[in-house]
Amino acid sequence: MIAADQLRHFTQQIFLAIGCSEADATLAADVLVSADLRGVDSHGVARLPGYVRLYDLGRLNPQPNIQIVHESPSTAVVDGDRGLGLVVGPWAMQVAIEKARQAGTGWVAVRNSNHFGIAGYHAMLAVEHDMIGQAMTHAAPLVAPTFSLDKLLGTNPIAVAVPALSEPPFLADFASTAVAYGKLEILQRKGQAVPLGWAQDADGQPTSDSNAVRNGGALLPLGSDREHGSHKGYGLGAIVDIFSGVLSGANYGPWVPPFATAGFMSAQEGVGIGTGHFFGAMRIDAFRPAEDFKWHMDTWIQRFRNARAVDGHQVLIPGDPEREMEARRLSEGIPVLEPVVKSLEDLGERFGIRL
Amino acid sequence: MIAADQLRHFTQQIFLAIGCSEADATLAADVLVSADLRGVDSHGVARLPGYVRLYDLGRLNPQPNIQIVHESPSTAVVDGDRGLGLVVGPWAMQVAIEKARQAGTGWVAVRNSNHFGIAGYHAMLAVEHDMIGQAMTHAAPLVAPTFSLDKLLGTNPIAVAVPALSEPPFLADFASTAVAYGKLEILQRKGQAVPLGWAQDADGQPTSDSNAVRNGGALLPLGSDREHGSHKGYGLGAIVDIFSGVLSGANYGPWVPPFATAGFMSAQEGVGIGTGHFFGAMRIDAFRPAEDFKWHMDTWIQRFRNARAVDGHQVLIPGDPEREMEARRLSEGIPVLEPVVKSLEDLGERFGIRL
Repeated sequence: MIAADQLRHFTQQIFLAIGCSEADATLAADVLVSADLRGVDSHGVARLPGYVRLYDLGRLNPQPNIQIVHESPSTAVVDGDRGLGLVVGPWAMQVAIEKARQAGTGWVAVRNSNHFGIAGYHAMLAVEHDMIGQAMTHAAPLVAPTFSLDKLLGTNPIAVAVPALSEPPFLADFASTAVAYGKLEILQRKGQAVPLGWAQDADGQPTSDSNAVRNGGALLPLGSDREHGSHKGYGLGAIVDIFSGVLSGANYGPWVPPFATAGFMSAQEGVGIGTGHFFGAMRIDAFRPAEDFKWHMDTWIQRFRNARAVDGHQVLIPGDPEREMEARRLSEGIPVLEPVVKSLEDLGERFGIRL
Repeated sequence: MIAADQLRHFTQQIFLAIGCSEADATLAADVLVSADLRGVDSHGVARLPGYVRLYDLGRLNPQPNIQIVHESPSTAVVDGDRGLGLVVGPWAMQVAIEKARQAGTGWVAVRNSNHFGIAGYHAMLAVEHDMIGQAMTHAAPLVAPTFSLDKLLGTNPIAVAVPALSEPPFLADFASTAVAYGKLEILQRKGQAVPLGWAQDADGQPTSDSNAVRNGGALLPLGSDREHGSHKGYGLGAIVDIFSGVLSGANYGPWVPPFATAGFMSAQEGVGIGTGHFFGAMRIDAFRPAEDFKWHMDTWIQRFRNARAVDGHQVLIPGDPEREMEARRLSEGIPVLEPVVKSLEDLGERFGIRL
């Protein structure tokens, strides 16, 4: 177990060591560690060596000049100048929030960025302003559209955060695939089979081989197969790709550059600039009084949470499991896996920073 | 086979007969028949008797005073005055388009409406203005959230339409469930089993009983079960419900009123006004020049359509199957099922109108 503060401090020191400003290093560390706190271990400090590797490869600018390159009253396109997605994301989200303050809503497409951590972190930034927050990003291609043998989409997550009154916010944050790649990797390391419906093999057939994606196979869209609606998950992932990539001027589809740790994919010739994201903020009182809305959100949440449940289960509100995990890990510490601890210690050694 | 024009004329005459204006009857007929043309038979003229029944029940106002009740530069809330959703939808979409012209984007939440036909019809209205169109609606509860025994969500579809240059538009239009209820009904009538993953029984267990939803069971969210991501489909359906219902001041969750033909559900005490929808329009050139964007959409579409495919299949672009169906049915006519023809003839007899 490592305390969140300790992990955050270490992470911040590493980002400082590669040349980030104090403010950027602090923010980036907060975004990363918030993933560990919420139990999304695949998007937390486990990725820190990957960001440093991006820096080593010359693909990460630690002192980016992030700027708006085009705008209208309710929209903007932001160029991230190869900065940390962890920093570009909140920057763009602030633009969306400011636009929403003036125009009712704000929508920001980002290009020239890279991995932005968990989508939910960014979406949640709007909630304290009595706004609904949205964040989505594309990612390097791991997913085959329905009937495709080619991997053309990333796991392309969407997050939507909605404020309530006395209840905690509603926070849906999910990949547009049947399962996150991290879950497959866990079974890979254990040498175990994966459930049918998570992946396909190199011939596009159902497989329980946890190594399928490495061997010419692919992750499957949410819905798993055509009969269970995989074309819908494909459509959802495609929308995220178009909003994040085509609208912003970033790459898209199979041209989205791989994250530094994804060694088994190679970058292809690009069709745009870097990786893209898409953010939105909608001011509640641009629709109805915020207090009314939040009172009804409480009613919504309570009705769903109190639904009759299957034996041994309860009906959860999107965001419940992550919030409960966060409370537990804040008090008990974060159980960082041994290989991840080792990789962080190696990083620390390189820069003379103690974990 | 019935020609689209004949079906459209008949439908328009029926709407005129219950007191709609010429313009509204023409528009509503066009929305309904466009569903039949695109092969979404469950949302086409098969529902015409249902709309008339809504009128008979006093729940449909044929001469609605549709109006904006609240607005900001990029948002509006529209009260449909119990008008046909088929008419309220395009009205609200025009508001979104007009807002987008001025502010870059337009977002319209609608209350006090009813069934609006196929979501894709409305989303497509934005495309000719070089805008991305979005349309979503909630519906009467048929779907159980993950682990719930209660039906709390509708099939809650989302449509997103994106213009391209030489390629036809990208049009994703899908329910947030594993399968549309209409597909289950088809197997019901044939007395056949449904695939596991479409529905659960009254105890929340997987079932292949096509009558399960009538007998205390429920439709399943996209993803089917927890292991395959049903909590994601639940999250998606919840977002549609919150945007359509809570943001607009309509009902939401289990309180969404049933469509007239859904005889096995009963309306409960409401928490808002009627049924709700949510529409969006984003002006492309509020992000980047429309020509650039559309050129890249062509590239996107061509790359996906040309993907290597599983033997005997091809990779489709969202909207392809419906557009091909429309071309075929425009030339060959629409194969309306015998019971539907009978129900239309009965309607025609009542009003003295020949099919």
